[in-house]
Amino acid sequence: MTVVAFLTDFGLQDDFVGTCHGVIAGIAPDARVIDVTHGIQPQAVLQGALVVRSTRPYLPVGIHLAVVDPGVGGDRRAVAVRTADGRVFVGPDNGLLMLAADELGVAAAFELTERKYRLARVSRTFHARDIFAPAAAHLANGVDPSELGPAVEPSELVRLDLPEPEVGRVQIAATVLSIDRFGNVATNVRREHLESLGVEAGAKVEIRIALDRYYAVSAETFADAGSGELLLYEDSYGLVTLAISNGDAARLTGAGVGDGLRIAVQ
Amino acid sequence: MTVVAFLTDFGLQDDFVGTCHGVIAGIAPDARVIDVTHGIQPQAVLQGALVVRSTRPYLPVGIHLAVVDPGVGGDRRAVAVRTADGRVFVGPDNGLLMLAADELGVAAAFELTERKYRLARVSRTFHARDIFAPAAAHLANGVDPSELGPAVEPSELVRLDLPEPEVGRVQIAATVLSIDRFGNVATNVRREHLESLGVEAGAKVEIRIALDRYYAVSAETFADAGSGELLLYEDSYGLVTLAISNGDAARLTGAGVGDGLRIAVQ
Amino acid sequence: MTVVAFLTDFGLQDDFVGTCHGVIAGIAPDARVIDVTHGIQPQAVLQGALVVRSTRPYLPVGIHLAVVDPGVGGDRRAVAVRTADGRVFVGPDNGLLMLAADELGVAAAFELTERKYRLARVSRTFHARDIFAPAAAHLANGVDPSELGPAVEPSELVRLDLPEPEVGRVQIAATVLSIDRFGNVATNVRREHLESLGVEAGAKVEIRIALDRYYAVSAETFADAGSGELLLYEDSYGLVTLAISNGDAARLTGAGVGDGLRIAVQ
Repeated sequence: MTVVAFLTDFGLQDDFVGTCHGVIAGIAPDARVIDVTHGIQPQAVLQGALVVRSTRPYLPVGIHLAVVDPGVGGDRRAVAVRTADGRVFVGPDNGLLMLAADELGVAAAFELTERKYRLARVSRTFHARDIFAPAAAHLANGVDPSELGPAVEPSELVRLDLPEPEVGRVQIAATVLSIDRFGNVATNVRREHLESLGVEAGAKVEIRIALDRYYAVSAETFADAGSGELLLYEDSYGLVTLAISNGDAARLTGAGVGDGLRIAVQ
Repeated sequence: MTVVAFLTDFGLQDDFVGTCHGVIAGIAPDARVIDVTHGIQPQAVLQGALVVRSTRPYLPVGIHLAVVDPGVGGDRRAVAVRTADGRVFVGPDNGLLMLAADELGVAAAFELTERKYRLARVSRTFHARDIFAPAAAHLANGVDPSELGPAVEPSELVRLDLPEPEVGRVQIAATVLSIDRFGNVATNVRREHLESLGVEAGAKVEIRIALDRYYAVSAETFADAGSGELLLYEDSYGLVTLAISNGDAARLTGAGVGDGLRIAVQ
Repeated sequence: MTVVAFLTDFGLQDDFVGTCHGVIAGIAPDARVIDVTHGIQPQAVLQGALVVRSTRPYLPVGIHLAVVDPGVGGDRRAVAVRTADGRVFVGPDNGLLMLAADELGVAAAFELTERKYRLARVSRTFHARDIFAPAAAHLANGVDPSELGPAVEPSELVRLDLPEPEVGRVQIAATVLSIDRFGNVATNVRREHLESLGVEAGAKVEIRIALDRYYAVSAETFADAGSGELLLYEDSYGLVTLAISNGDAARLTGAGVGDGLRIAVQ
C-alpha cells in the first residue's frame, strides 16, 4: 500500500478534491490518499511550497501530489521529481515542489508527457484531474517515474525566492509566511535569529506591523503568557510566530500573509 | 472493495458527515468511502444533481450515496436506483440522483423500506445516518438492491427541470448553474450554443448580468486572456463559464447561482 | 483493522489534521482514520465533549482521538481512558473525553508519558501530532493502554460541568449547546422536560432569547411546520432544538452557543 499525500488550493466546497480521489481510486485501488490540506489560499504557490516542505517529515515515504497551479493550460511543465530518499513529488513546475525536494536532494525529474499515464481526454483547466492525479496513481501502482516522460535537468526546475529576514543589531525585518485558524502569525524568522539579538525566554520585545506597535513576551508556549498577552514563540515547525494566549493575533494586529513585521529589542 | 461515493450539503463544520462514515464503517468495514463533496449549498437539490452527474465519470463503478434532502421526515420516498452499468444511486427521491442515473439508463429502482437495512432507531430528521448510509453500506457488502424494499417504476421517480438556455440569433439567455471557490461562473450554455452564434476562439462577446454589461474574450484557457481580463471558456465538465484571469469573476459581477446571464455577439 | 475516530477544533484550512493523518499512517499503516469532525469551535472543550459523546454510538469500537486543547504546553495531563466496552479515548485531561467515557463506564486510565510512544521530538504547542496521534496509532497496533504510562485514578480525571436546564411549572430556562450548519439551535432540554410542562406535539410555545420573543410550534419534523415557521423538535441526538422550516433559526434569532433561552407555555 502506497501513500499519496495530496495538497491543493482547491478548498472543499467544490468537487475538485473528491473528483481527484475518484480518479486515483479508479487507477490505483490500493493506494491510500492522505489529504494534507486543501486550504492553501487560491494560487498561493509560495504558501503551498512551505506547507509541502514543513509537513513532509510527518508523511510516510511515498507519492506527494501537490497542485497550486495558476499557470494551468499555459506553458509551464507538469513534472515528477524523485528525491534521494525514494519519494516522488508530482505537480506543476512552478516551484511548489522544490522547497521540499531540494531539502531531500533531487535524484531525477521527468516531464509528464506520456499519454497513457493521463486521462484519455485532457482539459485545459483541470490538470489535477487529467494529468497529475493519474500520474500519482500510476506511480503508486509501481510505474517508474522515468516512464512518465522525458528527463528534465534538475537544475532547470523552477525555484521560488524564499523571503529571508534581514537581521540587524537591534531589530529583525521579517515577513509573515502564514496565518493559521487560531490567528497565529508565523514569520520567516528562526530561533537563532532571535538569539543573535540577545532575546531570551521571558524577554519583552517590540513588534511593529505597518504603523502599529505592540509588546510581546518571548515564550516557549502559550501557558507562559498571561491570558490576552501577545507572545513570540517557536511554532511546531520551527518558525518564530506571534500569538495571543486565548486570542487571535492576526485579527488584533491585522497582519496578513506577505506583510512585513519588525521585531526589535526593547 | 467497493467504493461508496458520498455527496451531501452537510458541510464539514458539524459531525453529520463523520457520523455517516462511522455508520458505514460499522456495517461495511471493507467499503471505501470517497467524499465527492459536502459543500453543496444547503438544500440546493439542483446543484447537487448537477455535481452527481458531472463527477460520475471520474468515480469507479460502485455505490453513489447522495443526500440533499429538504423534505426529510415528510412523505418523499427514500430510494436506490440501479443503472445499466451496475452502479447504484442511493438517496431521496427528489431528483437529486436522476440527472446522473438517466444519463446511464435506469435498470431498476427500489424504495428503502426494509427495516433490517436501516438503523434500529430511525430519527425524523437525519435519514442520511439512519436510512441512506446503512443502505449504501449493505449494498457495498453485496446486498442486492431488490432486497431493500419494493420496486418503484422508474418513470415514477421524481425528475428536476433543468433550465435550458434560450439561444437566439445574436444572443443567448443563460442561467448560472454554479460558482466555484475561484469565483468561476458556470452556466448552462454548451460550446455548440456559442458556435451557433458564430463565436470563435479569440472573439469578443458582451455579457449582461442584471443591469451591468461586461466584455469578455472567448478563450480556451486562462492563459489566453490578459491578467484581469474576463474570459468565457468551456470548463473541465463541458460548461461555458465566465472567469477572470487571476481574479474572481463572481465577486466582480455579483453573479449568483440561478441568476440570468446574457451572452451577446458584439 | 482498527478504527481511529478523530475529532479536533483544528479546522481543515491548515495542515494540522493532515499532518496527524500522516503520523498515524507512518506508525499504524493498517489503521483506518474516520474524521468525525474538525469543526469544533476553537478551544470549545464543552462543545467537543458533547460531540464526542453524541457521535460515539455511531462509531465502531476502537480508538477515539479527540483534541481540543487550550492548555497545550501547560501542566494538564495527556491521557488514554479505557472504557468498559473496550474503547480507548485519547486526548487531553480537560474533560473533553469524559462525557462519553463516563456514559460507558471508565475501566482504567493512563497518563501518556512513555517516550517510545511519542514522536522523537515533542513540541510545546502541537501535542496532537507529537503525543496524541502517536499514542492512538500505537493503540491501533495493539499496544495495551497500560504501556503508555502510569495509571491514573479514574475519579481524578477532570470533568466538565454540563449546564442543566432549570425546569419550572410554566417555563424552562435552557442553554444553547450547539448550532449546526443549517442554523438549527440545539439546547440542553430533553423531551421529558417539555412533557413535564405539558407541551404536546402541535402546541405553540413562547421562546425568549435575550429581549426578543418568538412563537414556535412543538413538532416532530420540519414538514410539520409551515415554511418560515419556527419549530421546536427533538433532534437526531435527542436534544430539543429550535429551527425554521426552510430557514436559519440561529440567524433569525441571533442565538449563539452558551446563550440562555427560555421556553414558556403560552
